[in-house]
Amino acid sequence: MADKSEKTKARLPRGFADRSADDIRAVEKMMATIRGVYELYGFEPVEQPLIEYTDALGKFLPDQDRPNEGVFSFQDDDDQWLSLRYDLTAPTARFVAENYERLPKPYRSYRSGWVFRNEKPGPGRFRQFMQFDADTVGAPSVAADAEMAMMMADVMEALGIKRGDYVIRVNNRKVLDGVLEAIGLGGDENAGRRLQVLRAIDKADKFPREEIDKLLGVGRWDGGKEGEGDFTKGAGLSAEQIDKLRALMLQSGNAGVLIAKNEASPAELEAGPFPGSTNYYSNRQLCRDMIAAAEENGMSVVGINELNEIAALVDAAGYGPHRIRIDGSVVRGLEYYTGPVFEAELLAEIPNEDGQIVRFGSVGGGGRYDGLVSRFRGERVPATGFSIGVSRLMTALKNLGKLDTSDVIAPVVVLVMDKDTESLGRYQKMVAELRAAGIRSEMYLGGAGMKAQLKYADRRGSPVAIIQGGDERARGEVQIKDLIEGARMSAEISDNAEWRAARPAQVTVAESELVGEVKKILAAQAEERARGK
Amino acid sequence: MADKSEKTKARLPRGFADRSADDIRAVEKMMATIRGVYELYGFEPVEQPLIEYTDALGKFLPDQDRPNEGVFSFQDDDDQWLSLRYDLTAPTARFVAENYERLPKPYRSYRSGWVFRNEKPGPGRFRQFMQFDADTVGAPSVAADAEMAMMMADVMEALGIKRGDYVIRVNNRKVLDGVLEAIGLGGDENAGRRLQVLRAIDKADKFPREEIDKLLGVGRWDGGKEGEGDFTKGAGLSAEQIDKLRALMLQSGNAGVLIAKNEASPAELEAGPFPGSTNYYSNRQLCRDMIAAAEENGMSVVGINELNEIAALVDAAGYGPHRIRIDGSVVRGLEYYTGPVFEAELLAEIPNEDGQIVRFGSVGGGGRYDGLVSRFRGERVPATGFSIGVSRLMTALKNLGKLDTSDVIAPVVVLVMDKDTESLGRYQKMVAELRAAGIRSEMYLGGAGMKAQLKYADRRGSPVAIIQGGDERARGEVQIKDLIEGARMSAEISDNAEWRAARPAQVTVAESELVGEVKKILAAQAEERARGK
Repeated sequence: MADKSEKTKARLPRGFADRSADDIRAVEKMMATIRGVYELYGFEPVEQPLIEYTDALGKFLPDQDRPNEGVFSFQDDDDQWLSLRYDLTAPTARFVAENYERLPKPYRSYRSGWVFRNEKPGPGRFRQFMQFDADTVGAPSVAADAEMAMMMADVMEALGIKRGDYVIRVNNRKVLDGVLEAIGLGGDENAGRRLQVLRAIDKADKFPREEIDKLLGVGRWDGGKEGEGDFTKGAGLSAEQIDKLRALMLQSGNAGVLIAKNEASPAELEAGPFPGSTNYYSNRQLCRDMIAAAEENGMSVVGINELNEIAALVDAAGYGPHRIRIDGSVVRGLEYYTGPVFEAELLAEIPNEDGQIVRFGSVGGGGRYDGLVSRFRGERVPATGFSIGVSRLMTALKNLGKLDTSDVIAPVVVLVMDKDTESLGRYQKMVAELRAAGIRSEMYLGGAGMKAQLKYADRRGSPVAIIQGGDERARGEVQIKDLIEGARMSAEISDNAEWRAARPAQVTVAESELVGEVKKILAAQAEERARGK
Repeated sequence: MADKSEKTKARLPRGFADRSADDIRAVEKMMATIRGVYELYGFEPVEQPLIEYTDALGKFLPDQDRPNEGVFSFQDDDDQWLSLRYDLTAPTARFVAENYERLPKPYRSYRSGWVFRNEKPGPGRFRQFMQFDADTVGAPSVAADAEMAMMMADVMEALGIKRGDYVIRVNNRKVLDGVLEAIGLGGDENAGRRLQVLRAIDKADKFPREEIDKLLGVGRWDGGKEGEGDFTKGAGLSAEQIDKLRALMLQSGNAGVLIAKNEASPAELEAGPFPGSTNYYSNRQLCRDMIAAAEENGMSVVGINELNEIAALVDAAGYGPHRIRIDGSVVRGLEYYTGPVFEAELLAEIPNEDGQIVRFGSVGGGGRYDGLVSRFRGERVPATGFSIGVSRLMTALKNLGKLDTSDVIAPVVVLVMDKDTESLGRYQKMVAELRAAGIRSEMYLGGAGMKAQLKYADRRGSPVAIIQGGDERARGEVQIKDLIEGARMSAEISDNAEWRAARPAQVTVAESELVGEVKKILAAQAEERARGK
């Protein structure tokens, strides 16, 4: 037995969290729905272990505040380095490369699981979190990317998120890279400035245009004026460079931003294309404008043509621009993307941790990673995939009231009035009978008296308590308390004296009627819950 | 693009494995059943992260071949040591200790998840594996231990394992410790010999009595004779010490062993107790005999009395000795157990990896760990729990044919005959319509021709392929191939010439009839599958 003075402190490392019953049940329910959509699209489950050789995972994390520390790593007994996976895509690439010959191609698979980032934890930022991915390997055509975007739109709707409350935004790394090259930010020597530019663009849905311009140019003071608040260093772009950037990546007043601000209704967008409009575009019109802008700047249009083909395919399948939206401002952080990139965004306005009403933002994303399997195979293996941030999506759905787990009923508690082995055996038998009838139930296993046992049942949210003391036993009877009705009655009785006189809802029945009577009470409670909804 | 010469090797570290679709679906199904039983017993889900402070996990692993290397550990940026959890019990203890005040007590919870052992991997021995635990914290009474044993019996039967094909064996660490003390193996200086003795006892269900005696005494040669095969060093016990050990821990001919050897039928045992029998005992009679033996050797009977109370409780709840069996030979490895210990054993004979028919053995176990929460709290917090080895149990159930996942139908494949964007859009629309009707389906996304596409559908096990070339399109029709019927027909036609003349089962229908016709074919296939069962 540990001495008080030398006891170990019970605490978790920062950035890790325990999961409650509510969260586990909510995630379970949500994942079953997502799995249903992935299966409907013909994807098969496959899972990789949480530990891989460090070199197999590669270094593709977005630049860390603490370089080389983004991953948890340790040496094996043969001195080789192992790492905890930081996403599900890198292990998938290793798996497909290792089993390439025997897999059907294209290989459509899905997986969920924990991933780890050895980052500085912050509010809502964890070092262990869950992702739920789908990937298609061996499909060179952008039809595979279009399918990913459509599947994600279907996932959102299957989860009960209304059309107009989400959008799948699609961009292309080739466009991004081309623009950066065109404004003179190509080459290794500009990697740092490219990152600054991408981070600024990434804020386009949060800040107004002039604030983004500051981040792209001279820098920005948090407080609004020079010297006020924190200063974010700018990327140092000239006005001309910023203009070129805007022409392709930050079309002012484009539908992506308008939808995000809920200024264009789904019906208006559905009615597109709107070639003459200065406010919003159909996906096809947006691509045409982007091509014009690219040609004017002497840039490659390959990436934009791919976006145009995606737009055509999703249009044909009936996914309008308010569901899947070409959007030049989408920036995905991971270095391994080589083509189309996607982001699933919740537009619903939800209270945040501080109670402020905000648009919820990204709940997942992905893109094409044609080089990731090639690392192992030495031949080009095209691949595209999508990753859902499970905890984030779960939080959003709970806030939207889409993950109700109130149908889980707490157990019936059989109180222990006498503690001799024979009596315990009798209580145990009652519990066994209730369970055999499919009723969630338990015998009280602590050491406390009757009052504390009823308090325990209350704390568990139990619907019913069963009591059999010596008197009841002698008569072959049991007392059954309806704890929900009891709580309701006591809430209605405001006068204290009256409360003491009144008795919580309870009945006394013969032992043989125990199961039948409990069933009756549970049914009545269920009916009342249904009425209350 | 990686050069062939410098490509990374795609491989997994030893002791880690990828999981197939079949395994994932089988585990999913199995875990849902187990969860159902845990919930029925009033347990609530709660989960801890995979990483904890090393000191919070404690050092409770059974002696490792490589000391201090049983756990994967690494230092955090504040120099504190972190470890991957090696079981689910130690994190549970940390969680309960940390949240003690706000939890209902007793606290009944369950959890599943990956655990890690940094051990030398071997065949069927992995460094990452899944456990599924239930724990009751704050229940001092052995009624909580009895409940664990009964719940495990219910889990086995819920999974379809027949009565008589499993047994939950129950022992008590206090008895074990008492015997070892009584034969002079107490104290720190005998820790090594105690371990040798426990390992010998642990083999009681594999080796005959005289071989166990060798392991307890002078040592044992694998080959049967001195100098033949490997030598296992003995614990060096005298004949007298071995006798005392046998009286309490290795009752020769006891029912535990007999059941294990299938020599006593469940019906015979059900008819017990058998006070006069030399072959098998009721649980109560076994406890009486153990008490007599203990008193004769001047040993404490506290532990045996606890076993006796467990026997009484499970009897009262209708769990006979062929389901829950007091058994003095149960040895659980983990150091943190302080009272009753359990083991769930499958008696069914199943082909092993080498094709030999063997009893499957342990699929889970657990016990009372009254000191584990106390480490953090400095006060006694009684606790008991049970852990199921998920992969092992899944393997057993698959072998027993209890985890059929053949109800998962592969997707319908819509072939891509023309690759222009307009045609792709049309194929995409067909897939969208099939999915909207709840039919698992996909458009072929690779680059191959028609023959390879049909081969792909075959490899996926697809039930149906949809084909629309230029001619069909012109007529507004689609071709639908029943691939199951096609395979059946081609199997029946042995003559090659006849095969070429015959046509696989297929129909051509108007585009508007696509969904209805596919539904019809799938229904016919389902009917045929049901007939074939």
